[in-house]
Amino acid sequence: MNHSPLPPALPDTDRTRHRRLRDQGSLERAALEAILDAGFTCHLGVVVDGHPMVVPTVYGNDGRSLYFHGSVASRSLIASPEATVCVTVTHIDGLVLARSVFEHGVNYRSAMIYGVPRLVTDPEEKLEGLRRLTEQAAPAQWDYARRPNRKELAATVLLALSLEEASVKIRTGGPDDGDGPDAALGIWAGVLPLISTWGEPETDPLLPAGVEPPDHIAARGGTRLG
Amino acid sequence: MNHSPLPPALPDTDRTRHRRLRDQGSLERAALEAILDAGFTCHLGVVVDGHPMVVPTVYGNDGRSLYFHGSVASRSLIASPEATVCVTVTHIDGLVLARSVFEHGVNYRSAMIYGVPRLVTDPEEKLEGLRRLTEQAAPAQWDYARRPNRKELAATVLLALSLEEASVKIRTGGPDDGDGPDAALGIWAGVLPLISTWGEPETDPLLPAGVEPPDHIAARGGTRLG
Repeated sequence: MNHSPLPPALPDTDRTRHRRLRDQGSLERAALEAILDAGFTCHLGVVVDGHPMVVPTVYGNDGRSLYFHGSVASRSLIASPEATVCVTVTHIDGLVLARSVFEHGVNYRSAMIYGVPRLVTDPEEKLEGLRRLTEQAAPAQWDYARRPNRKELAATVLLALSLEEASVKIRTGGPDDGDGPDAALGIWAGVLPLISTWGEPETDPLLPAGVEPPDHIAARGGTRLG
Repeated sequence: MNHSPLPPALPDTDRTRHRRLRDQGSLERAALEAILDAGFTCHLGVVVDGHPMVVPTVYGNDGRSLYFHGSVASRSLIASPEATVCVTVTHIDGLVLARSVFEHGVNYRSAMIYGVPRLVTDPEEKLEGLRRLTEQAAPAQWDYARRPNRKELAATVLLALSLEEASVKIRTGGPDDGDGPDAALGIWAGVLPLISTWGEPETDPLLPAGVEPPDHIAARGGTRLG
């Protein structure tokens, strides 16, 4: 495996080039990393029998590769190795309410990563990938919950997708029609933010009385995702 | 166009059949409709040059078709007509924190719709589709903001995707390892809910003083999405 750092600029390929709305495209790897760090779910696109299939799944991220996993029986994962996939991570930040319907839009941050995933077979890397994947969604759970045993590891497919070929799109701010002819209409315009928040932990009723959520879980209640 | 109602059961096709985790699959059209009604963004999967491409976008929904739109210059939309697409709508409802890492999971509601989109060319249907699309994200804005003019309509591509071939997956509830050997570990287990909430409207600073958000926008602040 190559451990040299990825370049700070995102690549310009046929697939990642921003053809439209260029002001929404970011070319910085730091923007990609911020989007990946802010979430834990993605949409994995694969081609099955010539047709696209888009599956929501969780991911891990070590700055070089995205890790995703599934059952050995999963159809989307079986199609993935040795074929190009597209993984998209999206955060919806709000509605842009303009004076005209045509200028309505969405504030969002989105990353698309293209590549041919690599099946992770090395046991040490597999464990580390699963740790990344667990920690992305639930920080500190890897050290708290029971870790996978040999049988569970064998039942899990782990794929690694290089973060080399990626593109980022971000839209922030208010509507764009505040200085055009529609500004005279007297129609309210602005942004309606959309916010994702963790709720308070709900204890499994099967737990014996007195087992309280550990600090690393309890402290997340009320905090924002992303 | 066919206006007979879609059957209440979702179809069983090669693409929609639930091969795994059958308990998470729903076969009812009502479940599909509830998932679509609860959101306004989707991930559109298309095949471009033999590779998958997954693009976040907004949708409208009239119970028969999903509508999505874009610029006439959009690469993903140009690839769409006459080719099968997969549109996935996902709501992430929480983290399932089990006693073992292997049993960790996500509570979610997800719908995948397969089909060949139809380019909407009839002006009346195009306007109605755009109305559905606007109202899905921003109810009552179609009657409040300025509607699209002829030039704007010509610059917009609207696609309709039949809701006939769809599959639904839903996971709810707590972890599944409360009655297995791991229950003796004394590890806390449960669910950490994830909640999407609309924030308070942020007025465009370019608006003249005194233009307040209308009730249909102001009333959404603090309410939940989905």
